[in-house]
Amino acid sequence: MQFDGTHLLADLFGCSGLDDMARIDRALRDAVEAARATLLDIRLHGFGPGAGVTGVALLAESHISIHTWPERDYAAIDIFLCGRRHDLDAALSALATILAADRVEQQRITRGYALASPATA
Amino acid sequence: MQFDGTHLLADLFGCSGLDDMARIDRALRDAVEAARATLLDIRLHGFGPGAGVTGVALLAESHISIHTWPERDYAAIDIFLCGRRHDLDAALSALATILAADRVEQQRITRGYALASPATA
Repeated sequence: MQFDGTHLLADLFGCSGLDDMARIDRALRDAVEAARATLLDIRLHGFGPGAGVTGVALLAESHISIHTWPERDYAAIDIFLCGRRHDLDAALSALATILAADRVEQQRITRGYALASPATA
Repeated sequence: MQFDGTHLLADLFGCSGLDDMARIDRALRDAVEAARATLLDIRLHGFGPGAGVTGVALLAESHISIHTWPERDYAAIDIFLCGRRHDLDAALSALATILAADRVEQQRITRGYALASPATA
């Protein structure tokens, strides 16, 4: 793994299909591909019809996670990728598109062993 | 799931055993128990002897992830728990203890659908 990484935390509002396991699976896979990251494994857990889904894509470069609250049309995402060659914007855009988000808020945090102290970017 | 959540990002320095899958597995399980969270699944991937481990504990209340760089004695952790009854400090302490970290830096970010805009706590 490389020198440092960016941890992107995104909150997606006004989403659709947040209880749909197949849609969440597709959103994660499309995000991994868009980021040009290397997928190791995807794990999903659904809490039942109309209820949330929790899922993680394990990557060679760290992970992408999603947790959904369909009753609020809200999804919490984090995208943690090591190295600078990956496209976090494309990954987030893929997730937001498939989940039909109408508003996205994000924060980026630079992390890694090279940093004396983690800094919010 | 509940109303809001706290996302704790922690960087652990000076750690030991970061290529040891069994130790990482135990660290995650102890952290989940310390947090009083509900474990759904643990997934670990090792990159080989002397190399890093990536792992995620999927929880009913979101997740705990760890990515390790044994060549730098460094581990990046995130602990995302929904609801206020969980003990993030105890979870982080469990991880830091088992990995013998000599320095921990952390940031906490409040997230959730109740927030007009995510705020750094």
